[in-house]
This record gives sequence, C-alpha cells and structure tokens, in this order.
Amino acid sequence: MDIHSFTVYDMLKKNCRLFENATALVSGDVRITFGELLRGVQSLSGSLSIQGVNKGDRIAILAQNNHNFFLLLGAAAAMGAIIVPVNWRLSIDEIQYILQDSAPSTIFFDENFKNVISQLRAKCDSLKKYFVFGQSEDDYISFTELMGNYPAKEAEIKGNDPYIIIYTAAIQGQPRGAILSQDNVIFCNIQVASMMGLSSNDTYLNFLPFFHVAGIVIPFSVMHLGGRNVIMAKFDPKAVAGKIEKERVTIITTFPPVLRQIMAEISKGTYDLSSLKYAFGFLESSDTIADFEKKTGCQFWVGYGQTETTGVTCLGLKSEKPGSAGKQGTLVNIKIVDEYGRDLETGEKGEILVRSPIVFHGYWRQEELTRWTFRDGWHHTGDMGYLDNEGYLWYVGRKAEKELIKPGGENVYPVEVEKVILEHPGVNEVTVIGVPDPKFGEGIKAVCVLRPNVRLSEQELIDFVAARIARYKKPGYVSFVDSLPKKEDGSIDREKVKALYGHN
Amino acid sequence: MDIHSFTVYDMLKKNCRLFENATALVSGDVRITFGELLRGVQSLSGSLSIQGVNKGDRIAILAQNNHNFFLLLGAAAAMGAIIVPVNWRLSIDEIQYILQDSAPSTIFFDENFKNVISQLRAKCDSLKKYFVFGQSEDDYISFTELMGNYPAKEAEIKGNDPYIIIYTAAIQGQPRGAILSQDNVIFCNIQVASMMGLSSNDTYLNFLPFFHVAGIVIPFSVMHLGGRNVIMAKFDPKAVAGKIEKERVTIITTFPPVLRQIMAEISKGTYDLSSLKYAFGFLESSDTIADFEKKTGCQFWVGYGQTETTGVTCLGLKSEKPGSAGKQGTLVNIKIVDEYGRDLETGEKGEILVRSPIVFHGYWRQEELTRWTFRDGWHHTGDMGYLDNEGYLWYVGRKAEKELIKPGGENVYPVEVEKVILEHPGVNEVTVIGVPDPKFGEGIKAVCVLRPNVRLSEQELIDFVAARIARYKKPGYVSFVDSLPKKEDGSIDREKVKALYGHN
Repeated sequence: MDIHSFTVYDMLKKNCRLFENATALVSGDVRITFGELLRGVQSLSGSLSIQGVNKGDRIAILAQNNHNFFLLLGAAAAMGAIIVPVNWRLSIDEIQYILQDSAPSTIFFDENFKNVISQLRAKCDSLKKYFVFGQSEDDYISFTELMGNYPAKEAEIKGNDPYIIIYTAAIQGQPRGAILSQDNVIFCNIQVASMMGLSSNDTYLNFLPFFHVAGIVIPFSVMHLGGRNVIMAKFDPKAVAGKIEKERVTIITTFPPVLRQIMAEISKGTYDLSSLKYAFGFLESSDTIADFEKKTGCQFWVGYGQTETTGVTCLGLKSEKPGSAGKQGTLVNIKIVDEYGRDLETGEKGEILVRSPIVFHGYWRQEELTRWTFRDGWHHTGDMGYLDNEGYLWYVGRKAEKELIKPGGENVYPVEVEKVILEHPGVNEVTVIGVPDPKFGEGIKAVCVLRPNVRLSEQELIDFVAARIARYKKPGYVSFVDSLPKKEDGSIDREKVKALYGHN
Repeated sequence: MDIHSFTVYDMLKKNCRLFENATALVSGDVRITFGELLRGVQSLSGSLSIQGVNKGDRIAILAQNNHNFFLLLGAAAAMGAIIVPVNWRLSIDEIQYILQDSAPSTIFFDENFKNVISQLRAKCDSLKKYFVFGQSEDDYISFTELMGNYPAKEAEIKGNDPYIIIYTAAIQGQPRGAILSQDNVIFCNIQVASMMGLSSNDTYLNFLPFFHVAGIVIPFSVMHLGGRNVIMAKFDPKAVAGKIEKERVTIITTFPPVLRQIMAEISKGTYDLSSLKYAFGFLESSDTIADFEKKTGCQFWVGYGQTETTGVTCLGLKSEKPGSAGKQGTLVNIKIVDEYGRDLETGEKGEILVRSPIVFHGYWRQEELTRWTFRDGWHHTGDMGYLDNEGYLWYVGRKAEKELIKPGGENVYPVEVEKVILEHPGVNEVTVIGVPDPKFGEGIKAVCVLRPNVRLSEQELIDFVAARIARYKKPGYVSFVDSLPKKEDGSIDREKVKALYGHN
C-alpha cells in the first residue's frame, strides 16, 4: 500500500483496536461491536472473493437500510470493489438503466425486490451472482450464507480508486453515476469531524436512505471517530422519536418533509429528546429549524453540498446566519463564476465551483462530461449562489438546465463556443444555440452583436472559431443582429434568443 | 491545479475570506489580521519571484521566532518554494553542513547571525540572495524592502511537492533533512483539529523554536481553524506567563525543562491563567503534568510523534491513561514489529511503524536511506514501543541502532557526541548514554576509557566537546572507567553500559 494511504478499511481496523467492545451498529435487536464489525467485514471480503468478486468489480445493492450495508461497504473497501447503492424508489426502467450502466457482477437485494430482479436479470448481462437479504431460493443465495469465518481478502488500494458510485441528477433524461473514492470519504469524515466536533460519544440515527450521499456522509463521520450508528429500515416519524429517546441519539440528518413530520410527532410531548445535540439539514426553512431547536434544545447545522462533493461543501450553525448555507469546509476551495468562468465579486450571483479533496472522481463512463465538469481545474456544481462579505454561502438554485447542442452526436456546450467568439475583438455580445440541421440533425448557430463600425463576414467568424477549438464545435450558422433580448437583471434571455432565431 | 488539492496557500485564502479582520498573528506590538496576512504573503511571493526565487528553490531561515516566518511559509506555499528552518543553536560547522546539503538559493537571517553568514557564504555556493531581519548592509537586503504591493506569484503545486525541510536527528554524525509536503501539513492540521476540537476561538502561544516540527504543527492547526498565534522570539518563563494572561492564550506546547520553568514562575501566584484550556507535551513526567493541571485548570494532551510524521502520530488526554502516549490519530495506521518486520501482538515491544497521509516524503537527497526507512510500505520510526489492549501507545525508547537522547526536547544521537570525544587524543573508548536529568528530563553522559597515563578532568572533556558541536550536545555528566563491557564480537555492549552507569 502507498505509505500515505489511510483507507475506509484502515478506519475500521483503527476502531477495532481503539473501541473493540463498543457498539458500532444498532439495527433492531442486533448490536454489533467494532470488533465484530471488523471481523465481519474481513470474513465477508473473503467469501465475496470466493464468490468471484474482484478488485474493481461493482456490487449493486437494492435494499432498504440495514446494517449489512456497512459490512458490504467495509468489505468493498478491503478488497477494492465498488458499491452501487440503487434507489429502490425508481421505476424498473430507471433501475435497469443504472444496472446496465454500472454493470455490476453481483447484486444484493431485499426479498421484496425479488420480482424486480427476476424481471431485470435477463437484460443485465454483467450480473453473475445474486444475494438476497432473506431466504435462499433457486440461485438467489441468502446473505447469511456469505457470513462465516473466511480469511480477509485485502487488495492493494489507491486512495483515489473508485469506491462508491451514486447515481444522481439526470441530464438528457439519464442519471449519471458519480464516482466517490475512499479518499473522498475519509477526508470528508475528518473535515466534518473537525467542524462539528464529533467524538466517540456520538450516536447517529440513520433513517435517510443509504442510496443518497446524505444518508452516508454523517454516519461515516460519526463512525470514523468511534461513535455509534443506529439504523432504521426507512423513515417513520414515530419510530424516529422513540429511537432518539431509547438509544440516546445525539445527531440526525433531515430533509424538509422529514423534519416537519418529526416535529408533529414530538409535539405530542411524550418523548425525552435531551440527548439530541445536533440536527443537520439542507434546504430547511428557518422557522421550522427555529421551532425544532426550541423544542429539542439541539443545535441545527445547515450546509450546502451535492453527491459530487461527498455531500458536504459548506457547513455552519444555523444560528450564525439564518438562511445561509454556512461557510466553506476546512478542506474546501470555493468560488463563484459567471457563465464564462470569470471570477465574480462578493455578493454577485453565479455558478458555485469547488476544488477539494472531497470532489468526486468524475461520472462513470462519461469521460467527456467529466472533463467538461472539471474544466479549468474546478468542479462546476451546476448550482447557483453567492458569497457574502463574511464568507457565508447563499444558495440560489440550480443553473438553468445545462444547455447542450448535439451536432452529429457530439456534445457541444454553447458557452465554450461563446467564449471563443467573444475573444474576437469585433464581437460585443453573442449567444450560441442549437438549430435544426439537415446533415447533422442539430447545428450550431451563433447570434452576434458586433461592436460599432465593425465589419465581419459570417465565414470570417466561422474560420476564427474553427482555428481555436475542435472543428465540430464551429458554428454552421451565424446571424448578426442589432441587440439581444435581455432579462430583468440585464443578462441575455437565452430562451427568447431561441424563440427569435432558432431556425437554420 | 489538481481538482483535489487544498494547499497551505488555499488555507490562507479561506481564512482571509472567513476571518478577514480577525487577528492571525501577534508579535510584540505587531498585530496582523488574516486579511493582512494573505495580502502580505501574496506580495512577498511576488517580490521573491522578482528576486529570482523559483518553484522548488530552497529558502533557508536562520532566525529566532518572528511573525515573518509565517509570511515566508505562506509565500513558499503559493509559489512552491521550500522552506529550510535552520536550528540556530547548532555550531557553525553543523549549519554549514545543512546549508550545503539543502543548497538554498536564498537565506533570511537575524542581524545577530550576520557573522555566521559572513563566515559561511563563501562555502555555500548555492546562496545568491541574502535577506536580513534588520538593516540593509552591503548585499544583505533588509526584509522590509521585500514588502510592498507586488502581484502574487502562484505556481502550479502538487500536494506532495516538498514544502518544508527540517533537519533532524543525526545518523553517522550528520543530520538528515526530512521533507514535509503541503499535504502533510494540511492533513496533520485537520487531524489535530478533529481530535482536540480546535476552533477560531483558540489562541496559541509560540515559544518553541520554529525550526522544530513541534514548533510548527500545533500553531498551523490553530491557524487552519482561524485561531490566533502569539509569537515570542524565544522561551522565557516569566514572559510566557505574562503573555498567557495578556493574550488570553488557550493552548501551549511544552518540553520537559520548559514546563517546570513555567511552573516555577506561575507558582508565584500573580498570574490569571484561566484562559488556558490545553497544554500539549511530549516526554513530560506524570507528576509535573498533574501539578500543572491542578495549578492552571487546563487539560494536558500527551502524544507521540517525530519530524517524519509531521509531529503528531498519537494523541490523547493525559488523564485517560497517565504514562501512555495516547491513541493513534484519526488518519494514522500504526503497528509494532520485531526486528525482522513481523507483526507483534498487543503488549509486545517492538519498533513503531506508521502509514498515513502525515508521513513525510523522505530524506532530502538520501534516496537509499528513504527506501530503507519506507520498506514494506511503512515508515520505520526507529522508535520502540507497544500497544496495550485499549490501543494506547506506550513509548519505550529509541531503537538500539538509532539511539537518541532528548535533552530538553532536542535530538542528540550518541554517535555524534562519541565521534567528537574520540577526536580527543587522550580518549581510548567512549559510550554516550542518556541519563535522568532534573533540569532537562534527559541528560547526556559520557562513559570514557582514557589512554594509559593520560590525565583529563571531567570539565576539560566537556569543554572540548562544547567547542566542537552545538553546546546542548555536550555531556552534562562524565565517568572515567577502566574498561567498557563488551559483547562476544568485541563491540561495546551499550545495554550493559546503561545498566552499569545509567544514573546521573
């Protein structure tokens, strides 16, 4: 192993040494110590290896939350396999797309999803082994048969090898698999711990699904410091309040509908929630948070993040600046740019860019999209926001759906063509749009406003672009106009440009 | 820049954004905010570049602590230069060796050291520019002339590029330059922060010299979180107590003679030290620590580390397990092996091995030694210890082949003192060992066999050594004996020497 490495598997070994007999996981009546967790992980890595799982293989999981998820994450960390947690709320077509795209060799699933698997297996060539959380049946092997006392399978791992693929926001109608590495997870853990002050005395209650990054990142941080994770199969407000009381939970993560439902339950006043130190949430309303803090006495952390940044980019106590998304993490570079990548000043709205050890490792099998997303050495989040004069981030919303033109199946982003055209000294403004094209299906059109007294032919402009970027990105069509339609804030109204000039 | 990078320069930019008007540095009457620090660092990087300093160049510093050290560390981080802080307590020959070995293009020094520089410059071909903390004179340019309003020089940096070279314990009579990278510093910061719970409310008092890793690691961690650093040129117990009171200091780092001297001062009872939350120290006696905790109400952190692990490998509250060196850090793999590299069981003594993002990047220009030290994918510390059944590390001592005496936190290899003593014409044989010392924790004792008919006093021998190497390396104790115990192979039996003469 690289002498500078510290993997998720190393974290589990550390915890076994430091907290062997302390509880790591609670799931219903099952209680698993850090010693049992490590030994389970080691044995599972060994039996998965016997089942033919190799380094780099994908292991899909289609299941509600259960403690075996942590065993699989640990075994994958040891042997260098890649976990693909699948959102079971998706339609069967969407699940099929994810399985075909990630091409797992192995899948773990709840008994409930047997029908889904039976329908999909013929269409997913990569699948060779099927493990069910339940009874064995035909070639569906029970998970319990994998558990035993096998010698660990430990592979040579690099910190930036793929570790988890989480499918996230759809582009062009298909979700993309964001690749997280073990380094991403480890550095995010330690960043969160350094900001929230986590310790081995913390207990986290898992009710958010493990197939979202928000369901993984804080639990992992708590585990890294030696704290406990209490697992619920899925969200149920009554059970949540009961678990907080019973297990003396110190931290939860919430999302808007969840927090209000918990509030409604605890308003009945029959729970002792005094153990709760922190709640953590995105996109909650300030009033709901204030109510919750008052009722429970806990402190509310807010933040900004996305799957592509291992879940946490900014973090802060809500009380510091209500409405903001906190401050950049202790390992995070952040900046705000306009659509041409130019740095914006404090207070100006633009796209949020991130550079950090917690930035993901690209989209699975989408090299071009990854290069585009990582252009200029920064991760382009596609989210809009601004920084105030104390460094707090204010989240504004998603960037208008990423424009894409597809001439002859190539991907061309209008903004990269616009950037080149604006380098021409004669051009004052430009908008590039897709238009129907008899040859390529879609063609590239530049709608330009020239500076006063400039004379420029269409062909001269096309040649100027062709000399500077890939030839297939040059406009096939050029219109010179007197002015471009604007929005109230002064920016160009791209939709109106399309409506006015969207013909070839 | 690599999309996963977060450098020391990024940390300074983050702090400028989040804490622009908060105090970063206090040095005498000088107070520098994080905004001023960043702007100073940027301007300094620009003027150093104009002076011909390039990426990868070494910048030596021969000076007592001052706030400009942080400016130089920041500028080096931005431009990819390498800082070599030189121990000014060394003899001129030792300083010459370090300058010749590290081959800096530029040196910064205190006015006090002008004579040293004038004597050495002809022997150090690499040196091209000389900057003095004081008045300009001939080609010694005042540091203040570098400060102005220059545009920053920002280089493309990799996280594992060399950043600081600290010369540490001598082997075969010569010190070795341990290379620390910006990743080492950043990950050590965040690890320490996650374990000690540092925040922007902390204030660290710097009185340990910046040329030791212990003088850099905690200050940097405090700075990373937005806390303050108060700088003293050097240790002075009375001034320390006064500074803690005046600046409401929350953290200090100590070494054996230092803590007792502070204790003696504060026992006078005229100081308000209620701000002090934490003291951090290596090799302190449990009784002294208990006294100190009682007197100040602070908590004492103990640890184990070395320059080669960016200073902190293990850490823990002394109260958890008095006498131990705490537990492995949140980013640290540690194991104990026998002399053949075989893993030892809990409780068995052997060499301490480390694998972690905080492991250094090898010895400067010592590839073979680096390969040997990093064999089997682990850093071989040369320190002996064992892990107990709760994961606490117990430090036992230096490995025989790498004996080390630590008088007052300095590193002294017996072999380098023995080498000098053997230069005395009257000495036939000698073994140098560490013995208990009331003032320095550990003292240096020379056990000598003189040649026939030679008369030599203890003091004469001590003076002989003091004239040839750093004064702190001279023996405090000398015994003349008729013969030294030998092993079967005829070599001196160091262990038997210790058993027979290991008292002061």
